[in-house]
Amino acid sequence: MSGERPSPRRRLTVAYDGAAYSGWQVQPGRRTVQGEIEAVLARVLGGPVRVTGSGRTDAGVHALGQVAHFDDPRGVPPARLLQSLNALLPADIRGRDLRVAAPDFHALHSAHAKTYFYNLHLSEASGGQRAVAASLPPLRRALFHPVPGGLDVAAMRRAAAALTGTRDFTALSKAMEPGRGTVKSLHAVRVLRIPRGLRVFATADGFLYGMMRMLSGVLVEAGRGRLSARDVQELLAAGDRSRAPPLLPAHALFLWKVRYAPRGEDGAAEQLLS
Amino acid sequence: MSGERPSPRRRLTVAYDGAAYSGWQVQPGRRTVQGEIEAVLARVLGGPVRVTGSGRTDAGVHALGQVAHFDDPRGVPPARLLQSLNALLPADIRGRDLRVAAPDFHALHSAHAKTYFYNLHLSEASGGQRAVAASLPPLRRALFHPVPGGLDVAAMRRAAAALTGTRDFTALSKAMEPGRGTVKSLHAVRVLRIPRGLRVFATADGFLYGMMRMLSGVLVEAGRGRLSARDVQELLAAGDRSRAPPLLPAHALFLWKVRYAPRGEDGAAEQLLS
Repeated sequence: MSGERPSPRRRLTVAYDGAAYSGWQVQPGRRTVQGEIEAVLARVLGGPVRVTGSGRTDAGVHALGQVAHFDDPRGVPPARLLQSLNALLPADIRGRDLRVAAPDFHALHSAHAKTYFYNLHLSEASGGQRAVAASLPPLRRALFHPVPGGLDVAAMRRAAAALTGTRDFTALSKAMEPGRGTVKSLHAVRVLRIPRGLRVFATADGFLYGMMRMLSGVLVEAGRGRLSARDVQELLAAGDRSRAPPLLPAHALFLWKVRYAPRGEDGAAEQLLS
Repeated sequence: MSGERPSPRRRLTVAYDGAAYSGWQVQPGRRTVQGEIEAVLARVLGGPVRVTGSGRTDAGVHALGQVAHFDDPRGVPPARLLQSLNALLPADIRGRDLRVAAPDFHALHSAHAKTYFYNLHLSEASGGQRAVAASLPPLRRALFHPVPGGLDVAAMRRAAAALTGTRDFTALSKAMEPGRGTVKSLHAVRVLRIPRGLRVFATADGFLYGMMRMLSGVLVEAGRGRLSARDVQELLAAGDRSRAPPLLPAHALFLWKVRYAPRGEDGAAEQLLS
């Protein structure tokens, strides 16, 4: 028998309130989610630990199911390590699940799809954007973006359908990176009604910088009758981000789920969406 | 014809995130919701204005439908006054509705019933209160109190039924005020399931200081099998607050609705509860 060694790789599912962080990724001099987790793991495991996420989330963006991997050569039992993590992490970051993963599991490269959602509050106020903003209920402030009521949800869904598919999403990204890596497969965009609001879900094999917030902005404009499904297709085809609506704010955006198993084997996200 | 003058009285419905406030009621040197509203009204109406609420809410308690009255002898149109209010109030306090009321309308004395709710998060963690607290999802931190999962909801509902009725609630109040004013009519206590949690609604003609948070604590203990419906009745009969469970924290408590019309004429709260 060859000496099979247990895999040191760990898969961590983590939730966070992004309000106090400069996003996921470590940046010198900034408080980041990755930085907090690496610092606590270093303390618990007694040495530097590199944590790799499924992708960055921007400053202020929240996560319910961000996934990351790291190695624990000492092999601390995952249940105990998770408990130690949560005892030392700030309360706005919580490990939800920690398990042994295959040695070649990679949180970014192994990911099949990610699902984000964006929270829209439908304002009862009539009038301009200022009146709409002023109407946001206090307890929704932290996690919702207010938009005018009376949006045409059917038009939003037509625009959502026009967005899906494998295409160049340069027009819906914030940074200039046309051509290379800007082709993504947007599997599904769904607009769900929630009490006094809408929630936009999008699932893709990857998202460009700012893409989910621009996509949500496009759907809001569609709901206001300012963009048709045809306009959306032209916008994408032109690849010209100057014609896209402005980026919606980060505080209403959530990384919901990262799927690793092939489609159908880990269908919780799809179940909820279908 | 006698010169009928229009009523100067105004009825204001207001929502607030209580996190940043030392409660509703004006206190010297403290930031309070009443204080903020009075300051803004004084500025808009050009002189001191006294605002009277349906009751106090404690430090950190939220409101979706707190009601208050004040007088505006100048008769600014309510829609315009509400707009001015929301333009000047901090974003964590919002006027939801402002209307002309009868001259004898009194936010406290005219109230027929109030409904509060308390948000419980059902933890997946096993173990002690520390593990339960550590399991609270980051995005629920601000508005939920974590309790152990696996609560017996039927037992909670039996305890809730044992609490209702017209009785002396001294045992469920924080301050010492036995006998005088401690008899309240608790019309309904309902335990609703929400995703990964429970929401306790209680409607009464009035609440003693700390009563809703002690009542919610009693139901949690009942759900854990530590208090029976009979224990609850004995607790109330004895009027001994030292035997009651500790007060649950304020941040998960919401003043939901104040009813002024007689029962049945303004039944939104009851519709949702039934």
